[in-house]
Amino acid sequence: MASLTASGAVCKDLKLVHENDFFYTGLHKPENISSPLGSKVTLLNAQHIPGLNSLGISFARIDFRPGGINPLHLHPRGSEILTVIEGTLEVGFVTSSPEYRLFTKVLQKGDVFVFPIGLVHYQKNPMKVPAVAYASLNSQNPGSVQLANTVFGSTPEINTDILVEVFQLDKKVISHGQMKF
Amino acid sequence: MASLTASGAVCKDLKLVHENDFFYTGLHKPENISSPLGSKVTLLNAQHIPGLNSLGISFARIDFRPGGINPLHLHPRGSEILTVIEGTLEVGFVTSSPEYRLFTKVLQKGDVFVFPIGLVHYQKNPMKVPAVAYASLNSQNPGSVQLANTVFGSTPEINTDILVEVFQLDKKVISHGQMKF
Amino acid sequence: MASLTASGAVCKDLKLVHENDFFYTGLHKPENISSPLGSKVTLLNAQHIPGLNSLGISFARIDFRPGGINPLHLHPRGSEILTVIEGTLEVGFVTSSPEYRLFTKVLQKGDVFVFPIGLVHYQKNPMKVPAVAYASLNSQNPGSVQLANTVFGSTPEINTDILVEVFQLDKKVISHGQMKF
Amino acid sequence: MASLTASGAVCKDLKLVHENDFFYTGLHKPENISSPLGSKVTLLNAQHIPGLNSLGISFARIDFRPGGINPLHLHPRGSEILTVIEGTLEVGFVTSSPEYRLFTKVLQKGDVFVFPIGLVHYQKNPMKVPAVAYASLNSQNPGSVQLANTVFGSTPEINTDILVEVFQLDKKVISHGQMKF
Amino acid sequence: MASLTASGAVCKDLKLVHENDFFYTGLHKPENISSPLGSKVTLLNAQHIPGLNSLGISFARIDFRPGGINPLHLHPRGSEILTVIEGTLEVGFVTSSPEYRLFTKVLQKGDVFVFPIGLVHYQKNPMKVPAVAYASLNSQNPGSVQLANTVFGSTPEINTDILVEVFQLDKKVISHGQMKF
Amino acid sequence: MASLTASGAVCKDLKLVHENDFFYTGLHKPENISSPLGSKVTLLNAQHIPGLNSLGISFARIDFRPGGINPLHLHPRGSEILTVIEGTLEVGFVTSSPEYRLFTKVLQKGDVFVFPIGLVHYQKNPMKVPAVAYASLNSQNPGSVQLANTVFGSTPEINTDILVEVFQLDKKVISHGQMKF
Repeated sequence: MASLTASGAVCKDLKLVHENDFFYTGLHKPENISSPLGSKVTLLNAQHIPGLNSLGISFARIDFRPGGINPLHLHPRGSEILTVIEGTLEVGFVTSSPEYRLFTKVLQKGDVFVFPIGLVHYQKNPMKVPAVAYASLNSQNPGSVQLANTVFGSTPEINTDILVEVFQLDKKVISHGQMKF
Repeated sequence: MASLTASGAVCKDLKLVHENDFFYTGLHKPENISSPLGSKVTLLNAQHIPGLNSLGISFARIDFRPGGINPLHLHPRGSEILTVIEGTLEVGFVTSSPEYRLFTKVLQKGDVFVFPIGLVHYQKNPMKVPAVAYASLNSQNPGSVQLANTVFGSTPEINTDILVEVFQLDKKVISHGQMKF
Repeated sequence: MASLTASGAVCKDLKLVHENDFFYTGLHKPENISSPLGSKVTLLNAQHIPGLNSLGISFARIDFRPGGINPLHLHPRGSEILTVIEGTLEVGFVTSSPEYRLFTKVLQKGDVFVFPIGLVHYQKNPMKVPAVAYASLNSQNPGSVQLANTVFGSTPEINTDILVEVFQLDKKVISHGQMKF
Repeated sequence: MASLTASGAVCKDLKLVHENDFFYTGLHKPENISSPLGSKVTLLNAQHIPGLNSLGISFARIDFRPGGINPLHLHPRGSEILTVIEGTLEVGFVTSSPEYRLFTKVLQKGDVFVFPIGLVHYQKNPMKVPAVAYASLNSQNPGSVQLANTVFGSTPEINTDILVEVFQLDKKVISHGQMKF
Repeated sequence: MASLTASGAVCKDLKLVHENDFFYTGLHKPENISSPLGSKVTLLNAQHIPGLNSLGISFARIDFRPGGINPLHLHPRGSEILTVIEGTLEVGFVTSSPEYRLFTKVLQKGDVFVFPIGLVHYQKNPMKVPAVAYASLNSQNPGSVQLANTVFGSTPEINTDILVEVFQLDKKVISHGQMKF
Repeated sequence: MASLTASGAVCKDLKLVHENDFFYTGLHKPENISSPLGSKVTLLNAQHIPGLNSLGISFARIDFRPGGINPLHLHPRGSEILTVIEGTLEVGFVTSSPEYRLFTKVLQKGDVFVFPIGLVHYQKNPMKVPAVAYASLNSQNPGSVQLANTVFGSTPEINTDILVEVFQLDKKVISHGQMKF
């Protein structure tokens, strides 16, 4: 189960291993952003780079359209370190209970920020030009949990009444959210 | 930093260690539920039971009023296993991207359910009588991240426009949510 | 080999995963205690709840007849946290060499106690009514080593002369112990 | 607490570190065996070799008088690999519940045997000449739990009635054992 | 000791934690390359970004002059994933005994390569324009061991005769190497 | 891939497990040293002793001819603790960047020394009689990387020009080194 397995891949016989097992090409290319929110994450984990198997690390590119956002999400099995390659990013994460402190920063090209394992975070491009970030996570299969998809877009849906209660929003609002995701 | 440290406590000299360092009393007592959502988590970690230091486990009691809910949350540093002690609980968790499958179950007294590390889950008492669960997590400091507090109740608040975008809800709705938390 | 493997199970395809993979029912039911010592451990590990695979936690119910005992034992791959659900339990564990300090406590309903990984411990019901405890261990396959079964009941038996020497008991006594187990 | 802490030592400033922090001398010297059972374990852990701090390994010499025994014991935080340097050793370990299989072997000089973490094992010199073994454990503080000391020699003592029940031996026998340890 | 400690830093009180504890600025700026080999590694670990403490990840920028090389080295406590930001890099690593297979690749901008923990690797800019790479390692203190500095430049020096033997080179050659480092 | 996999072996069914799965014989026998450098490492890992699977430890014998050397090498996945069984050994290891301190010691029979994970080390017999050491590493598959084989003897070879640059040696010298390995 994708959400539950950090490892599991079988190791290749060394004789069959090839340099391309440690290689990926094209991370510099702007990705086609189809998400309505205007961002796209390209994660390289052990499925894309077989040589990562058992090594406990992965790497990602994140593209942002002008105004695009990588919405509130968390990684259940990895901490993340990110740097801006191009453009500007507003980033933030919220600490755990009971403080729920929000740490934010506006990052310019060359700035670096850290998102601890399991904490909710986001990145937004506040500018009128594209932005790009590179990020690394210390798991070969860190997983990703987007809050809006989890709350409004699961299969099946979470009971509307529960969401009404938890978020203290109107039922119509919740139903509306569920329709969108 | 509470959100970031799994260990850190210094070990006592064995001569000063006492049986009470491994002991806690009163987990069977109904807790006073002051939360508007009608649930209360009592977590015993290494702060409450010093002997847990370095052992990587903790234990919790969760009280539910009739209709009470332990709202959508996750543990950044621990998986959870829970059993119902009294009453009934509807429980669920959502798997990570891209599936976002919701696994739910109505648990009766004596039923057991598992919530994997970092995945969003909840428990709700659907009945007109109180419910109680015991749960254990495999960290001495698992942490807890409630989605609604994170989304609407952080200090400072997450920018309203970001929430509007991420959850595709009306600005008024978001502001309303932020006011409540 | 059961004694040697902490993990090893293969992960299911997420499409085949079902909520029941994270579920167990009936932990509240009094178990039939056939052991002459008057206790019965029902351990839920990754064999009973497949979704525990790779999660590093397990859960147990322990039933005690009046006067029943969960005899001296240890878990080679997990620390344990236990709470009394019903009745009273005298519990204890012994620290390692060279101190061999015994920490004991009489636990009532709602009391909690910790047994660190690999240390010998026991729980006894000193009362004339049944007792029940729930416990959790931070391994999906913690294992259990009962001292009496290990000393007197292994297959094949440990050489009697060795036991005579180690425990400084009479050969008849040892042979008698071996006959019983 | 010695039984509970695997690490904990503070790291020296590199400028103050000396080659002797990685060094120990005299492991080849026969140890003075004062134990009535005729064996002596000399364990080198991070207390004896400061450079072992954080490295997760330790080393031991075990001396045996003719007929001497390193009695039934286990290591709560480490697996052991042992080789005979001199003489002959009967060794054995017992697997965990429910099999309790005893694996034994008579080891001659140059033979190697493995004792998995947390399992009860022993080594005995069956010959009329001394024996010596070297062993390594994969923890800088593996700990040691001798069964007889735990059962009969803890401070305070385990309740005699409990031992009578657990080992199904006569009360006199148990009291006698407790007197000896 | 820098070479020996993976963690060790004390956690700050959450009240004193600041967003800048998770932040670093200026990674995009070309570094002044003073090394004769024409490369410069700027590693961001828990010393530079305090919030990395306990998170197990770090990030680096590597600048290469035309023809510059990040010479043969390894990381004792971390695997590395690297991507080219600018220019071209010839990279390679050598597997362990007995195969000693060299996996090499010429990386262009946007290409990614993996260097497993503890294996010797290098990156060289074969072009007449500068090159830049970003890399991440799955330790907050991965350490770095350059072969030439280790072999020829330690304090004190490794005995020349040993190097003559090991590398099967002339004594003059070795002395010459030692003079240079 | 041998260099990349620390575990991976499948666990045997306990019914098929045999005492010989935890056993190896003949470590005391002088090994035939065919290496021109006059040393031979006999490593017992999980391939030689199946019962080591999942246990995280291995053991080795190292034979040295008079003047023999176990040349500069490192273990990518394990720290080592070594003791001299016979003869004398000059040992040393070099710490990581930027200090590159060399810690050396002349070890006599019974002396013990530690080589931290991933750091370059060597052992040399400076005497006219054979020497023997036993060593243990805290991995069931620690791996070994000899510097000279890595630098001069990989398949295919590292580009000569790169080695010239990195070691600042003459091209002839490097080619000569490559021919020898």
